[in-house]
Amino acid sequence: MALNKILVAQGGGPTAVINQSLVGVVLEARRHKAIDLVYGARHGVRGIVDENFVDLTQETSHNLELVAATPSSALGSTRDKPDLAYCRKIFQVLKAHGIGHFFYIGGNDSSDTVRIVSEQAREDGYPLRCIHIPKTIDNDLVGNDHTPGFPSAARFVAQAFAGANLDNASLPGVYLAVVMGRHAGFLTAASALGKKFPDDGPHLIYLPERVFELERFLADVKAMYQRHGRCVIAVSEGIHDAGGAPMLAQLAKDLEHDAHGNVQLSGTGALADLLCEEIKEKLGIKRVRGDTFGYLQRSFIGCVSDVDQREAREVGEKAVQFAMWGDRDGSVAIQRTGYYSADFVLLPLADVAGKTRVMEDVFIADSGTDVTDAFRLYLRPLLGSGLPDAYRLRPAPVAKVLNAGG
Amino acid sequence: MALNKILVAQGGGPTAVINQSLVGVVLEARRHKAIDLVYGARHGVRGIVDENFVDLTQETSHNLELVAATPSSALGSTRDKPDLAYCRKIFQVLKAHGIGHFFYIGGNDSSDTVRIVSEQAREDGYPLRCIHIPKTIDNDLVGNDHTPGFPSAARFVAQAFAGANLDNASLPGVYLAVVMGRHAGFLTAASALGKKFPDDGPHLIYLPERVFELERFLADVKAMYQRHGRCVIAVSEGIHDAGGAPMLAQLAKDLEHDAHGNVQLSGTGALADLLCEEIKEKLGIKRVRGDTFGYLQRSFIGCVSDVDQREAREVGEKAVQFAMWGDRDGSVAIQRTGYYSADFVLLPLADVAGKTRVMEDVFIADSGTDVTDAFRLYLRPLLGSGLPDAYRLRPAPVAKVLNAGG
Repeated sequence: MALNKILVAQGGGPTAVINQSLVGVVLEARRHKAIDLVYGARHGVRGIVDENFVDLTQETSHNLELVAATPSSALGSTRDKPDLAYCRKIFQVLKAHGIGHFFYIGGNDSSDTVRIVSEQAREDGYPLRCIHIPKTIDNDLVGNDHTPGFPSAARFVAQAFAGANLDNASLPGVYLAVVMGRHAGFLTAASALGKKFPDDGPHLIYLPERVFELERFLADVKAMYQRHGRCVIAVSEGIHDAGGAPMLAQLAKDLEHDAHGNVQLSGTGALADLLCEEIKEKLGIKRVRGDTFGYLQRSFIGCVSDVDQREAREVGEKAVQFAMWGDRDGSVAIQRTGYYSADFVLLPLADVAGKTRVMEDVFIADSGTDVTDAFRLYLRPLLGSGLPDAYRLRPAPVAKVLNAGG
Repeated sequence: MALNKILVAQGGGPTAVINQSLVGVVLEARRHKAIDLVYGARHGVRGIVDENFVDLTQETSHNLELVAATPSSALGSTRDKPDLAYCRKIFQVLKAHGIGHFFYIGGNDSSDTVRIVSEQAREDGYPLRCIHIPKTIDNDLVGNDHTPGFPSAARFVAQAFAGANLDNASLPGVYLAVVMGRHAGFLTAASALGKKFPDDGPHLIYLPERVFELERFLADVKAMYQRHGRCVIAVSEGIHDAGGAPMLAQLAKDLEHDAHGNVQLSGTGALADLLCEEIKEKLGIKRVRGDTFGYLQRSFIGCVSDVDQREAREVGEKAVQFAMWGDRDGSVAIQRTGYYSADFVLLPLADVAGKTRVMEDVFIADSGTDVTDAFRLYLRPLLGSGLPDAYRLRPAPVAKVLNAGG
């Protein structure tokens, strides 16, 4: 008798909680008598075509719990974007190993892979259940209130800006930081949650949902600097001109393209450096500092939202339940049901696959450089408990003695 | 009758715990009947010459405790480096306001300011007690086992590398991050504490205590990449050639100099970008990513060592005790007395002022690109409790079916 096997894999950029979803699948699968073996593919779809499998059935529950709390993809990931031929190969391997259920944790590219593999199995008449499990710090999956991984990355960004604002208030000048997010500005907008007092930064937020104009940017910075004597700015790596060309493309000599044909935006400090030079040169401000949060925002260990951890675990669990008790393939999605409460549904793969959500207009202030209260209300519960807070001394000025008239 | 006043100020780069020292001074001063008023200067020595004082006597103990737990300098800081004329001005203001005790929290430049002001008061016959309170994430104050602020920054760096290592293991390639520290490599070396398993990164650590040679660097990276299929690298912003010229100076067009005449190393991603380009071009490795930790490492809110918090509080308290019960000016220093336990002494200002400690040879491996166990033993207790840990799945490979011979 053939053993009933399931396969789980992780794709795309790692997050702080993607292992929660992996462990959610593995532990939930252990509850189901119809499942004998739980395989994991190393490095996503690449590991499937290479038949690079590990047997997760042999892993202890205790170690699984420890791995769940560890950021980044424990099985490894890949940037491969499978075309039809690649997906056929995936299907052939799944069939050869007698895999009955395929769970793929990833973003919108990964959901498209699941969709194609699902179609291949149907065409072939092979009984394969395919479930996509959501994951992306960009929060750009349609049909989801938010995606696992985003809340923890957003928490990092909010905490980073809360600290950078204090630093900038202590040594005034212009501070600019570039945040990940090619098309969706959710993560950059999360910087606003680091703000407590009315004059706190970020004073300006630049999102890919709005056209970036260098002249307007410089005028904004000048005005804020004049008002506060300092200026903290959050900039999405994906800011672009009216024609859609990334600002980074307008300065870098050698642009690296990834397997998806996209310009490589992360892993370089060039955008922050360029914008800082513009501010120094055009506005004559001396102290201008630029940071690029880079990989820290998705892989920093020890800055995780407990809400995100719990939900990432649950989408993994629900994926197995949908597969075992449902009668269709699909993409697990998080939907908000209260303030704050969430539930999980299974969406048709075609509804999610390859589509990109961007920030809704209701979340962006009319100025285009700030968020709305609707966004604050949306994001705050996702950041979880124990968020550090910033406090100030209350002013109690002492009269001058030497320059009493000054 | 004149009121007995003390003045406290914060200088140099902010840290995560510098407000603990401030609050240590204020709360300890309240215990002493000989002190009537506690003044704070806004923005360090700049606030003194501008007579920009606040009365901290009017602050509640409760808010002081909350401010103590908030990173960055609550009074504001400055990069001014006072010369003799500037120090005379400081002294004139202190005298005009009838300040009897001057406490300055800062690094080695700040200690030198305290030394000169102390000398001015003695020359003038004015009874002023001057105490320097240590603070610097660079850990480069002589006479100290370590300096408040360093343990929390080191914890951030260790956690950042622990996460970056997991990210790099998931999507293999070369990852390089630039860490603060112009002359002393302590903070860069802290990256080694993010390492758990023998094949974890950082695989290479470049410190300003050793000469940086680009050719050797490329050979090191090539060898590590061949051994592990990936490579995680920690680089100090202060790396320099045999002549002492910063590597950054060999590439940047416009070099900004600070008030101390030093080339501006922080607040730009240029060094990481340059080194990444060299690796891509010379070694032909495709996935090479560079981050610059920038201001996050000193101002991130929510990544603080409890040991650091406690000690930073204590140096502030001890400063007041030394001032009130001792008979001399000086610099408070932390000395290690056990494993792990610390005590506080008052060193003569001239022993600390303007001097720079670098990493002792016993902390640097013979290879020059790693730390020793002596360094691990030195640093680990300072990082504090609750340090997040990383876990892995245990390998249990599954036999191939399609490519059984492959």
